[in-house]
Amino acid sequence: MDDYKGMLIVISGPSGVGKSTICKALIEKELRNVELSISATTRRPRVGEVDSVNYYFKDEHVFKEMIYQNEFLEYAKVYGNYYGTPKQKVIDKLDNGISVILEIDTYGAMQVKKNFKKGVFIFIMPPCFNILKNRIINRGTESKDDIRKRLKSAFKEITEVSNYDYIVINDDIDKAVNKIVCILNAESCRTDRYQIDFTEFKEEFYD
Amino acid sequence: MDDYKGMLIVISGPSGVGKSTICKALIEKELRNVELSISATTRRPRVGEVDSVNYYFKDEHVFKEMIYQNEFLEYAKVYGNYYGTPKQKVIDKLDNGISVILEIDTYGAMQVKKNFKKGVFIFIMPPCFNILKNRIINRGTESKDDIRKRLKSAFKEITEVSNYDYIVINDDIDKAVNKIVCILNAESCRTDRYQIDFTEFKEEFYD
Repeated sequence: MDDYKGMLIVISGPSGVGKSTICKALIEKELRNVELSISATTRRPRVGEVDSVNYYFKDEHVFKEMIYQNEFLEYAKVYGNYYGTPKQKVIDKLDNGISVILEIDTYGAMQVKKNFKKGVFIFIMPPCFNILKNRIINRGTESKDDIRKRLKSAFKEITEVSNYDYIVINDDIDKAVNKIVCILNAESCRTDRYQIDFTEFKEEFYD
Repeated sequence: MDDYKGMLIVISGPSGVGKSTICKALIEKELRNVELSISATTRRPRVGEVDSVNYYFKDEHVFKEMIYQNEFLEYAKVYGNYYGTPKQKVIDKLDNGISVILEIDTYGAMQVKKNFKKGVFIFIMPPCFNILKNRIINRGTESKDDIRKRLKSAFKEITEVSNYDYIVINDDIDKAVNKIVCILNAESCRTDRYQIDFTEFKEEFYD
């Protein structure tokens, strides 16, 4: 069902682990035939953000209609705003041999996994749990309750790691990015991504 | 059963594809905690070959006793000489966190696979079947019958590729070696090679 020419690469992990920084650095490597998926969202553009580059900015009723029409690979409502991955845009790229990176939370990743068994699921792990904890605690001016909620949620996210193919520890951005590059190279060598025509081969070989 | 700290890496492929050249180049990279397995053989040392470095040179009766004692991961008789991978030496290394590369034929690879489900099985593929054919034909001063036998055997070997995890096309030694390095890096990130203790994690996180 998901035998596309490109690979679907899901980069996920707990909130605060550095997914965005890693994906940004990965895209800057300008790997051949690898692109970052652009999410749709109902939140307002921030200064400098461009429609169809950073996000597809949608009105809520449009977004909801897209949900209704099953046009998302995954979507979620986060702090009052919807975020989602438009399905057709991803499939078009995969069909054209372009591998697509989705940077999504663990809830979204598991939605994607249902339809993309051959996706490459990478979990970004903090080098040590206390570092993640401190990042979450020091992130903003949140209440103790909010922080506790975030910690609980990050804990839940981390325990989902066993649903992923790979764990990349984010102890150093460059190292983490290089590991992901290796994973993409290795995955492109996987036997189940090849289709070898032995009929032709036999003719050629016994010629 | 095969939950060792090191990885068992099997590099195989049809005769004439360039396995040895690739493995030599791979070892020259001096990857941390990666070693090439040394085979035992009953064939005579060639000039410059050193016992326990190039091979473990064994008398035939010793080799046969080792077979009888089940001391080989795999073995085969090739053109009158025995070749085999001593099991305990490999396991000792894996236990110590050293990954071991076996450069073996496809028959040996399938013997290994029975006991090492978690082994990393890499198949080296010729860039084009005619190149392999020409290499086999031009290899020595063999009779037409011998050549036909070798071609048939290479054909059989190639059709076994589906039993492998990865296909690395040997169109360029450096590229092929780099792909294998990536495969090893990627495999070391695989979730099923990690053991995460969530008990400790929980305590640390909710502290």
